[in-house]
Amino acid sequence: MENNKIIETAKKAHDAFLKTMNFKADVKNDALTKICEKLKENKDKIFSENKKDIESAKELLANGEINKAIFDRLKLDESKLNSLIKGLEDLIKLEDPINKILWQKELDEGLILKKIVTPIGVIGVIFEARPDCFIQISSLIIKSGNCAILKGGRECINTNKIFGEIVNCALLEAGFPQNSINLVYSRDDVKEMLKLDEYINLIIPRGGNNLVKYIKENTKIPVLGHASGICHIFVDENCDFENVKNIVIDAKTQYPSACNALETLLVHKNYCYIDKLKEALLTSDIKIIENPDNYSIEYSDKILSFKIVDGIDEAIEHINKYGSGHTDSILSDNQKNIEKFMNLVDSSSVMANCSTRFSDGFRYGFGAEVGISTNKTHARGPVGLEGLTIYKYLLYGSNNIVLPYATGEKQFKHKFI
Amino acid sequence: MENNKIIETAKKAHDAFLKTMNFKADVKNDALTKICEKLKENKDKIFSENKKDIESAKELLANGEINKAIFDRLKLDESKLNSLIKGLEDLIKLEDPINKILWQKELDEGLILKKIVTPIGVIGVIFEARPDCFIQISSLIIKSGNCAILKGGRECINTNKIFGEIVNCALLEAGFPQNSINLVYSRDDVKEMLKLDEYINLIIPRGGNNLVKYIKENTKIPVLGHASGICHIFVDENCDFENVKNIVIDAKTQYPSACNALETLLVHKNYCYIDKLKEALLTSDIKIIENPDNYSIEYSDKILSFKIVDGIDEAIEHINKYGSGHTDSILSDNQKNIEKFMNLVDSSSVMANCSTRFSDGFRYGFGAEVGISTNKTHARGPVGLEGLTIYKYLLYGSNNIVLPYATGEKQFKHKFI
Repeated sequence: MENNKIIETAKKAHDAFLKTMNFKADVKNDALTKICEKLKENKDKIFSENKKDIESAKELLANGEINKAIFDRLKLDESKLNSLIKGLEDLIKLEDPINKILWQKELDEGLILKKIVTPIGVIGVIFEARPDCFIQISSLIIKSGNCAILKGGRECINTNKIFGEIVNCALLEAGFPQNSINLVYSRDDVKEMLKLDEYINLIIPRGGNNLVKYIKENTKIPVLGHASGICHIFVDENCDFENVKNIVIDAKTQYPSACNALETLLVHKNYCYIDKLKEALLTSDIKIIENPDNYSIEYSDKILSFKIVDGIDEAIEHINKYGSGHTDSILSDNQKNIEKFMNLVDSSSVMANCSTRFSDGFRYGFGAEVGISTNKTHARGPVGLEGLTIYKYLLYGSNNIVLPYATGEKQFKHKFI
Repeated sequence: MENNKIIETAKKAHDAFLKTMNFKADVKNDALTKICEKLKENKDKIFSENKKDIESAKELLANGEINKAIFDRLKLDESKLNSLIKGLEDLIKLEDPINKILWQKELDEGLILKKIVTPIGVIGVIFEARPDCFIQISSLIIKSGNCAILKGGRECINTNKIFGEIVNCALLEAGFPQNSINLVYSRDDVKEMLKLDEYINLIIPRGGNNLVKYIKENTKIPVLGHASGICHIFVDENCDFENVKNIVIDAKTQYPSACNALETLLVHKNYCYIDKLKEALLTSDIKIIENPDNYSIEYSDKILSFKIVDGIDEAIEHINKYGSGHTDSILSDNQKNIEKFMNLVDSSSVMANCSTRFSDGFRYGFGAEVGISTNKTHARGPVGLEGLTIYKYLLYGSNNIVLPYATGEKQFKHKFI
């Protein structure tokens, strides 16, 4: 897309937002229902477009341009399509977050203030090469009343194109304005998007550290996401061996490339099963790196940094220093230490006696996940629909002016109603 | 301050935050109480330092380096100091926002998720030359468990220095770590601060448009604030003349340089008192600019852009196009039009039948105001203590691993408790 076209797209998306921001739940759910129907109707066409992507990707894999993990994720089969449709059906059932009244307050007689939930605006999403992302993300955007410019992984281009057609067709039938959901294709498009802070209100990069870092370095638009997931488990002095073993193995091996997978294991110096634990990890094909030079490496593989610490204080200090504020867990039977850890670890998810792999929008019961954020503003941790919303204040008066309050003649009541 | 010193300060502030983030309400309120006491004890010294600032400012005023409005705001008299102390006493009474449980949920048996409020981290605040700012801002930072680097207007340097001493002395006595609240002085310090996204989590610029724009252009750190306040009133077809006159005059003249003051008046073409309204505004010394070339000018003076519109649709379109998303009000007796306006104007405060001047943290009953934000993420509109907070997730397990949930062997309950 030429640069001026991206600006035009962003302007049109912004205009579309001024309409969708107030769409009622049934209109939005109607659009989602129509997407479901069209996904079912166009199943064969979707699979054949996806096959094109897989064919092209075979070449990229052979040339070493993509790795096996990316290649394996490209395939959209019957079961993946069904879970996409199931996800949409679940999303339709979720409560509409928009126009919810957070509170109302009588400022004074005849002067009522309401705080209500609104969508944010135009969201730019840059997502990884997975064939289910486009539908998942655009449906969250639709449900929340936002509009979007989406850029998918180039390896999924044909799958994304057919999905784009389906979504836009459903939106038009449901009465949405043109350009509510826009699909762009090239890295240059992303570069241009990042400049359009006048029209784009939030950027969500999903993907590798380098992508997220690049985006954070190159835009004034707020960015929601996480550059890395350096997650820790601290094993306190007295812990049952079997529990520790199970949790550490789960956190490291159940899905090693996930951002909430364990990267560094901190063990209390007096823990009596240190050697036995190391043996158990080795038996589970986990490579242990003791006292590495760099404690901020995300291995995304069955590799683990390992450090013996003096106790809970050193563990907390280590995590706050080398962690990425993502997810950290303490294994302990000492209630005081657990509370200390929960209070003083400055991460988006802090856990006790369980696997770090639980930090996830679906597991937390948000119904849908936009991504996981290590930001300290707006949205932190696993982000559901709520992260795509903000609020505005509505003040209903009866011809009130400020002057008598400024002079002290009148006083505010400030009473919640 | 030399550049390497600013980095050191930011690092130390970040270390201090790792302690203050979990301080209990009584410790924080103790610090605020001690600040109150010291303000009273050191009254004479404060006034004499403030006099130094006024003396220096006289020269700046004579040279035209500052304007009369800034000069007039510099003086700290008995009454201003008393309202500062009163503000602190009110803040002490406010509920502590930190560690509040937003909700808790049973993910499954023995697996409890809590969402709790936390402070953000290190906040950089750049504030205007008003002698009461430093105390107001640092007390909000203390109450919310954050730490800060504060840069005040150079015209207040002596007043800020004595206040800085008082605050730091009170903090040490109350058991706060060193460097919880840091004061810096030069524009170069600000320039360096903006680079320190590793240690500073939020920047709040208070002051003119140019300052806010400069900061937004030059940092990757999230910025909370508003660059401009282009506020509108739309006068609908049938409105009582007296009410319209009173509200428009209040919104424009009660404090013309406030960001929530009226800048553009849109009047329905069939409104029957157009000429009478113009006359009334002229009588109140308001200069009317009909159909100006630029509708996005913030006059901050008794000057008003004036436009006749075809009706509510044109009014809403105009506001969403030329407004700054700050505060806009409709004056109407037509309930349908009021609702349309409330729903479709994309501003942080949207009002009906009252003055735009109400959009303010104190008037909204927040007890304290950090600033007014036109952002679409994190905090929007008048921002109270809540805008200085975020949340984290605490997950309390009983040796739970993810594997059985991934295989479908176990199901989540996701039950709010």
